[in-house]
Amino acid sequence: MTPPKTIDFWFDFSSPYGYFMSEKIDAVARRHGRDVRWRPFLLGVVYKEIGSRPLTEVPLKGEYTRRDLLRTARFLDLPFALPSPFPVATQHAARCFYWLQADDEALARRFAHAAYRAYFVEGRDISQQVEVVSIAAALEVDGAALSAALGDAPVKERLRAASAEAIAAGVFGSPYVIIDGEPFWGVDRLPQIEAWLAERSAAGR
Amino acid sequence: MTPPKTIDFWFDFSSPYGYFMSEKIDAVARRHGRDVRWRPFLLGVVYKEIGSRPLTEVPLKGEYTRRDLLRTARFLDLPFALPSPFPVATQHAARCFYWLQADDEALARRFAHAAYRAYFVEGRDISQQVEVVSIAAALEVDGAALSAALGDAPVKERLRAASAEAIAAGVFGSPYVIIDGEPFWGVDRLPQIEAWLAERSAAGR
Repeated sequence: MTPPKTIDFWFDFSSPYGYFMSEKIDAVARRHGRDVRWRPFLLGVVYKEIGSRPLTEVPLKGEYTRRDLLRTARFLDLPFALPSPFPVATQHAARCFYWLQADDEALARRFAHAAYRAYFVEGRDISQQVEVVSIAAALEVDGAALSAALGDAPVKERLRAASAEAIAAGVFGSPYVIIDGEPFWGVDRLPQIEAWLAERSAAGR
Repeated sequence: MTPPKTIDFWFDFSSPYGYFMSEKIDAVARRHGRDVRWRPFLLGVVYKEIGSRPLTEVPLKGEYTRRDLLRTARFLDLPFALPSPFPVATQHAARCFYWLQADDEALARRFAHAAYRAYFVEGRDISQQVEVVSIAAALEVDGAALSAALGDAPVKERLRAASAEAIAAGVFGSPYVIIDGEPFWGVDRLPQIEAWLAERSAAGR
């Protein structure tokens, strides 16, 4: 038997649909014997590359998106409140994730959940380094070491590389899930992701 | 008992996700005792208003959309082949719909299904008036009367009014479904439409 192939989960910490996906993707993958590789990136870098902008800034789509977010959260049975400010810069959160991941994948994932919930449930401004450090400290991460690391060149470079890799992989939004080369954009593709995984695991048996 | 409130189904005949929705929305509505008002409009008029453009013309999103369409068709168990040319102008098809609808709502709907399938299954170029007339003729519509009507000022005005109404209703894409004021954009919102209708009909009992 070959080991299960990993699913790539690309997301920006300021993406509400990314937050929704973060609460669902691990369980869906697990049901089909797959692992998920969490890959935060900076959506702003991608938008700059392809000339796009946040949904909430597009005429008409902004008001729609606000309603859709509340309805989708209810549909998926997830706590949610649209934070203000929104969207925010997420380089501190994403750098923290990669710094933690170098030593402890599980801890990095716990931090990702905590950061998403801090922003989209509690309304804490995760663009502020002090908030990111406080979120990590609650997971028993050394705050002083983290604060120093967030300014380190190799940590910054790790995130720059991830965003470049996202562009190279064709990622143009968040969340973006890639399964064996097949791309799925948006949390509304969850049923198709489930169907795709079921089909692949049936074919592999 | 109050009569069931109508659901508005806005669509452009050149919208593949609109085609998918056209094959599903009536059955979903019927399950919850609702009627659907089919409302073709010109997406190009709306895009001009809000400064948007077809998904297939956005960098990266074009290739993704082509894959997503094939996968979504399979997921929804619908026949589909991306036609060429795509997208096309749809004023003849939409005007034919409204012209038929003035006398016979059911016939207009049969025509809408036939036009969508002609384009997205058989690859017939429905931007051509001759194709639209041929599709209608197969439903026993008088071709000569239709050809004359498609150039009539009141028929043209009916479509212009529909597109203006779409913009006034906040419609910015296709398909766009509005249920008691709540907007749903995209065929991927079908599960949320179903949940919304179930909740409303439970509340109304």
